[in-house]
Amino acid sequence: MQDTPRGARLHIAIFGRRNAGKSSLINALTNQDIALVSDVPGTTTDPVYKAMEILPLGPVVIIDTAGIDDVGDLGALRVERTRQVLNKTDLAVLVIEPETGITAYEHELAADIRKRSIPIVAVAAKSDLVTPGQVTAAGWSAEIGEPVLPVSAKTGQGIEELKRAIIKNAPDNWEGPPVIGDLLNPGDTAVLVVPIDLAAPKGRLILPQVQTIRDILDHDAYSVVVKERELREALANLRGKPRIVVTDSQEFLKAAADTPDDVWLTSFSILFARYKGDLETLVAGAKAIDKLKPGDKVLIAEGCTHHRQADDIGRVKIPRWLRQTAGGELSFEWVSGGDFPRNLNSFNLIVHCGACMLNRREMLHRLSVARESGVPIVNYGVLIAYVHGILPRALAPFPSARLILDE
Amino acid sequence: MQDTPRGARLHIAIFGRRNAGKSSLINALTNQDIALVSDVPGTTTDPVYKAMEILPLGPVVIIDTAGIDDVGDLGALRVERTRQVLNKTDLAVLVIEPETGITAYEHELAADIRKRSIPIVAVAAKSDLVTPGQVTAAGWSAEIGEPVLPVSAKTGQGIEELKRAIIKNAPDNWEGPPVIGDLLNPGDTAVLVVPIDLAAPKGRLILPQVQTIRDILDHDAYSVVVKERELREALANLRGKPRIVVTDSQEFLKAAADTPDDVWLTSFSILFARYKGDLETLVAGAKAIDKLKPGDKVLIAEGCTHHRQADDIGRVKIPRWLRQTAGGELSFEWVSGGDFPRNLNSFNLIVHCGACMLNRREMLHRLSVARESGVPIVNYGVLIAYVHGILPRALAPFPSARLILDE
Repeated sequence: MQDTPRGARLHIAIFGRRNAGKSSLINALTNQDIALVSDVPGTTTDPVYKAMEILPLGPVVIIDTAGIDDVGDLGALRVERTRQVLNKTDLAVLVIEPETGITAYEHELAADIRKRSIPIVAVAAKSDLVTPGQVTAAGWSAEIGEPVLPVSAKTGQGIEELKRAIIKNAPDNWEGPPVIGDLLNPGDTAVLVVPIDLAAPKGRLILPQVQTIRDILDHDAYSVVVKERELREALANLRGKPRIVVTDSQEFLKAAADTPDDVWLTSFSILFARYKGDLETLVAGAKAIDKLKPGDKVLIAEGCTHHRQADDIGRVKIPRWLRQTAGGELSFEWVSGGDFPRNLNSFNLIVHCGACMLNRREMLHRLSVARESGVPIVNYGVLIAYVHGILPRALAPFPSARLILDE
Repeated sequence: MQDTPRGARLHIAIFGRRNAGKSSLINALTNQDIALVSDVPGTTTDPVYKAMEILPLGPVVIIDTAGIDDVGDLGALRVERTRQVLNKTDLAVLVIEPETGITAYEHELAADIRKRSIPIVAVAAKSDLVTPGQVTAAGWSAEIGEPVLPVSAKTGQGIEELKRAIIKNAPDNWEGPPVIGDLLNPGDTAVLVVPIDLAAPKGRLILPQVQTIRDILDHDAYSVVVKERELREALANLRGKPRIVVTDSQEFLKAAADTPDDVWLTSFSILFARYKGDLETLVAGAKAIDKLKPGDKVLIAEGCTHHRQADDIGRVKIPRWLRQTAGGELSFEWVSGGDFPRNLNSFNLIVHCGACMLNRREMLHRLSVARESGVPIVNYGVLIAYVHGILPRALAPFPSARLILDE
């Protein structure tokens, strides 16, 4: 059984001072059901992610911020790392150390979290050392502005209450739209064009393809999964027209030639641009490509440090297309992983990857930073569709994004 | 991008005495391309698996047996653990420590490996401490009966030669048949019935489903992926008959009702019984179910320690079906993970899981141990099809297995 992808999990970050009991608390939370937990060590600058299930909420990922402690209690680096975690946090658990109680540190954390409209669940850890009465007596709930749950990682006391509080406080809009299901009626056929190239690992499909097939099943429709070469044949073998054809961006022109004009045709990248972020903002960003002039500055941001191929999309292909459009040399900067500059003012365009390793919250955060800086932002999928002239057709299922394109 | 499943990777085990330089060698091998390497820590009794690519061989998994060293140089436990690794090894790398050279220890290892017809690649590690001339002068190649490659993890010398030797010595039959591709002609349609139950993690398909979709694409055919409820509708929407319908075992009866009699209908479990092992042996094992008598002993073997649900297939459902067939109580024993008893003589039947976490070599080994003991062995998928009376139809695409059933 394969795991739910991290990006599709509610992100719960555990904050608190060093030795507040964060790690024991995470162990108590996740060891409830060891079979459903997996450790995914991040890079050296990343926190550790623990995947687990909290029913009926579903798959979540617990972000262990203990790594931030190693940076020390003060300083710009700690602030920066906390900020990076907050950018992807859907719900924050604030752990209070009972002997220290609530200090300026906890107040600042809570303020930082609230500033981003992230719901907070506050706990007093190591509650085997204090009684619930003491927690109340300490007036922490009033002071921090949240009910403080006494929790003992040691005895397990309060862990179930903590889970219930997480379920109750989880934001209900964290998931965004379905991948494709809202475009389909029950019983509809969706045709998925999946080229098999050398980069596709043996025996696998890439994650967006799997998520799309699954979402179609979840919405009582079904899919025809076909390579570009057999698309025409597969369409001819259907008695009814499919509701939609979704293709890998690389094969858009081939798919367009084989798909009747009155059938929706879009790309996996467009579907995921909407699923992960905000299609309207990205389409507006695409239109800014035409305004690029020689000498302009372009930021290319990737969510992960993947293995680069010879004709890497972010390093080679996109710079080439943009240079051609601008009619001259451009100045490129690249960032990857958790890095995303706070100051974007010097850029004329931001091009972001498909964000398969980021959650929706982090992608929305990056989009809003770009909007606030007044810098247009587009992603790989929307950019590819735009520079190949296929964006108008690919946006047919999404009228509000199409309107922005036509404006 | 998702990784190739471990079971579909060539298994390369690194053997050698403690401090022979195994771990540095593995680092040198895998750090060649850090982006393609992932660490999968095993349980405490398991070795560590490192997934990587060796082109043109494709995805491999390096088995680091360093954990076995912790057991100590002697004793039954060490022998047992080495045996467990050998049972899944497609190719063995034998690491010789240059100062110690070849002793009885290396000779025994080599003999153990050869007994199982596993190809050996021998290396002298830490070759920055010795010269290639010294390796030759030491006569190791003649002594161990294999060319000994001088390799330095430190300088990287010999690492490329080692990869070439691995590619050259890799057995060419390790993969077995395709999942489904040999049953299809180019342009054929395969219909895959994929029920979505509560156990299916959000946003995912289970691995056998993904591998089947991919194998269909790899063979220039295409698939219709549908839930059991929409199967009739999906079939009616096809102009031509599909070549085959593959269903989750749970929905076989429903799928049989909706699939025309002249269309092949089988289950994912049957496909994977053949892909992972030997369908004929398992079908012969299924027939032994009818001979079970009250009091008989049944071994139930699972390849992993998965999260058990209330109506767990191996703990609850299969014992219930077998008791019903036997008309009385049976004596069950369970083993899981790397454990598989060497002495099977006391059992009347072995029931094995689908082996999604085992590689083909290990499953074939288990089948041969059962055959040598004269104990019938069946797996979950074949057993489910048999007790539900659907095995004859499910075997229609596999005439030689069908013959065994009808004998």
